Amino acid sequence: MTERLVVVGGDAAGMSAASQARRRLGSDRLRVTVFERGAFTSYSACGIPYWTGGLVAERDDLVARTPQQHRARGIELHTGTEVVELDLAGRRVRSRDLDTGEEWWTGYDRLVLATGAEPVRPALPGFDAPGVHAVHTLPDGEALLDSLGRSGEHPRAVVVGGGYIGIEMVEALLLRGYRVTLVHRTPEPMPGLDPELGELVRRGLVELGVEVVPGAEAVEVLCGPDGRARAVRSTVGEHPGELVVLGLGVRPRTGLARAAGLALGVHGGLRTDERMRVLDADGARVPGVWAGGDCVEVLNLVSGRHQHVALGTHANKQGMVIGADLAGEELAFPGVVGTAVTKVRGLEIARTGVNEREAAAAGLAAVSVRVESTTRARYYPGSERLTVKLLAEPGSGRLLGAQLVGGGGTAKRVDAAAVALGAGLTVRQLLFQDLGYAPPFSPVWDPLLSAARALLPKL
Amino acid sequence: MTERLVVVGGDAAGMSAASQARRRLGSDRLRVTVFERGAFTSYSACGIPYWTGGLVAERDDLVARTPQQHRARGIELHTGTEVVELDLAGRRVRSRDLDTGEEWWTGYDRLVLATGAEPVRPALPGFDAPGVHAVHTLPDGEALLDSLGRSGEHPRAVVVGGGYIGIEMVEALLLRGYRVTLVHRTPEPMPGLDPELGELVRRGLVELGVEVVPGAEAVEVLCGPDGRARAVRSTVGEHPGELVVLGLGVRPRTGLARAAGLALGVHGGLRTDERMRVLDADGARVPGVWAGGDCVEVLNLVSGRHQHVALGTHANKQGMVIGADLAGEELAFPGVVGTAVTKVRGLEIARTGVNEREAAAAGLAAVSVRVESTTRARYYPGSERLTVKLLAEPGSGRLLGAQLVGGGGTAKRVDAAAVALGAGLTVRQLLFQDLGYAPPFSPVWDPLLSAARALLPKL
Repeated sequence: MTERLVVVGGDAAGMSAASQARRRLGSDRLRVTVFERGAFTSYSACGIPYWTGGLVAERDDLVARTPQQHRARGIELHTGTEVVELDLAGRRVRSRDLDTGEEWWTGYDRLVLATGAEPVRPALPGFDAPGVHAVHTLPDGEALLDSLGRSGEHPRAVVVGGGYIGIEMVEALLLRGYRVTLVHRTPEPMPGLDPELGELVRRGLVELGVEVVPGAEAVEVLCGPDGRARAVRSTVGEHPGELVVLGLGVRPRTGLARAAGLALGVHGGLRTDERMRVLDADGARVPGVWAGGDCVEVLNLVSGRHQHVALGTHANKQGMVIGADLAGEELAFPGVVGTAVTKVRGLEIARTGVNEREAAAAGLAAVSVRVESTTRARYYPGSERLTVKLLAEPGSGRLLGAQLVGGGGTAKRVDAAAVALGAGLTVRQLLFQDLGYAPPFSPVWDPLLSAARALLPKL
Repeated sequence: MTERLVVVGGDAAGMSAASQARRRLGSDRLRVTVFERGAFTSYSACGIPYWTGGLVAERDDLVARTPQQHRARGIELHTGTEVVELDLAGRRVRSRDLDTGEEWWTGYDRLVLATGAEPVRPALPGFDAPGVHAVHTLPDGEALLDSLGRSGEHPRAVVVGGGYIGIEMVEALLLRGYRVTLVHRTPEPMPGLDPELGELVRRGLVELGVEVVPGAEAVEVLCGPDGRARAVRSTVGEHPGELVVLGLGVRPRTGLARAAGLALGVHGGLRTDERMRVLDADGARVPGVWAGGDCVEVLNLVSGRHQHVALGTHANKQGMVIGADLAGEELAFPGVVGTAVTKVRGLEIARTGVNEREAAAAGLAAVSVRVESTTRARYYPGSERLTVKLLAEPGSGRLLGAQLVGGGGTAKRVDAAAVALGAGLTVRQLLFQDLGYAPPFSPVWDPLLSAARALLPKL
């Protein structure tokens, strides 16, 4: 008997699940139907800052696999088609063709929800004006490029939000020749870092000529006579810029799931088990429904709490797990440790585990150390400053988190700490890990090990 | 009562042990005496290729701490002084001033052996001729710089040995404008890698204009009328070069220990426990004697076998462990996983765990996979090819090793695999590690995870 799989959402998680299921189960066993609101599939939203910044030439460079390619592999894919209702009891979804308005029901045996996330866009005056941009989808990127094309001789931009997207868009706009003001709420940018590391990011931004406005909440976008943005008004002042980019984070796009009666977690995301099977409010499985990607919450293995992380790398893994589970293979997504990396020009930024605020929120006692090191042996050309902060649990000595800010070669060092966290290592165990050493790559005491050494006596 | 600590050897392990003991125990409790044959202390032997290649301007840049600085911290340091005899029963060492020939005995309560390693220099005709160089000590580097200064208009060099030092010296000589021939014994350079990865290194070398001569054993250095080297004769031919650099590896410098009746392992190194306390042939502790650095053998945690690894990073950690143990603090050096990284121009090379040959030698069944990936998202500027090979144990699925060859940003990725090996993770566990993702740093499937995904079905 041929079963029918319906997937809602055609980006990383949805298309990974569809492709993996398709590859594992022949078309005699499974019919795979995907509904995608937009025109694109399997694209890198994380690449949008680099495309709009001019480092990536073409929109299509960000597309890993086109709708045509998916269709050629035996997936029935409906783009421009939004699923507007889930009937879980009747095992069917109602879709709408966004061009024609036509609606129809499609029955399913198994359902994958991969509806992604949506950027936070405050309902404040002017935030929907022309010149105000989110950078979440390829059409968002196209709209931003259109606004960039309107820029005059001394263009100015305001980026609202000091997190990853905000920082990356600051870089993009600098590359485009803008004078950039960064308006953000916290005392330092990058709230994923503790403030003393965030301060290093602020300094880096200021050195690049960015006007950084901390502790400021944007309250209005002021528009010119042409109706387009001309400035952002915040709680601390007015910040001129004919281009306004919002980097206020994203939240799970789960309105459809909520309307269907599915339970949501505290961050608004769907809750799943390790096989990405959707759970109800009591933690029991909702029959026949999987979810993955930016619409789910994931377990942080360090804090023991659920969190919402919108990252393509998790979405891809979760899609793979769903595809495997649909085919009866055992794979399990155990959770995350909260790793994130980014850069602004030559300054690389990374974190994993929990920071001090997150440790406190999770009820974890933490001691920490901050160490100044270098990206290469001090004497090797191009060696740059690298600051590491490590957090650990007193008593047990368990590593809780790592934060790194520094020059070229800093960011991916976080991986060693991430694996240490994933394996539950103590600081003492970390200290004796056999990390690669050669002068072009590291001082003889790797910065992470150097920090572990400094942290040990405090535990 | 004041005890006396005598340390034999004043580089990484010896001076770390001396410094750590000095810092922890006051001079009323411990008198610290170090004997060093050479004129330098605490220098980076790993930096010699970069100094001789001209990337590091001054010899003294490689010196982390001078004899004067050590003395200022309360260490009695005798440079130019060789320990020529150990009297373990009498707890004393006989030293010789290498300038004056004067000899004397020094009693000790505790002894640290940190005599390092010595380069393999075959007893073959011409290998001691002027123009033939090892690159193990700072004076070696100075002698090489002197030979470089003699080079004519179209200088040629022969590097004998295709391991780390050989590869790094090829780079150094290319930087100095030499035409370089690399003569090595194995079918591909970098015998620490499996041959198909070694082949990538060979191709990289050939692209740089290096003449690579595989499967060749050097048998003679031919000299000109001036008595200086003019060519290397190997089992496959004659390779002209007025400069010959030996990269044939190093072996533990343990003649002194052997003469004193201490047991040596199969690789000629001292055997110790996790606190770096020297063991006798029966595995019992030799009272009052510690050893660390290039003169010891270490346990490979993956193969379960002992090996000899001459790396400053291990020497420093072992010195730290000795210093702590001398002060009664508990630290333990658990062993290594065989991580090594290097580069030749833009090509980065890394390995950890065991390769196929080492797995077989250790009696470990291994399946492997090789994956082609990129250093950054494919669309991000500067993204380069990166090849990963992973090995794992069928059945258990335990990760056994990783090898990486690729462009900028390749080498330190090995750290995540090294920690996974240190923690005994399976390939399945590795697959779900939360490694950092952003387009400037990685494809959305990190190369290591991509390889883990490809390896999983084979297990």
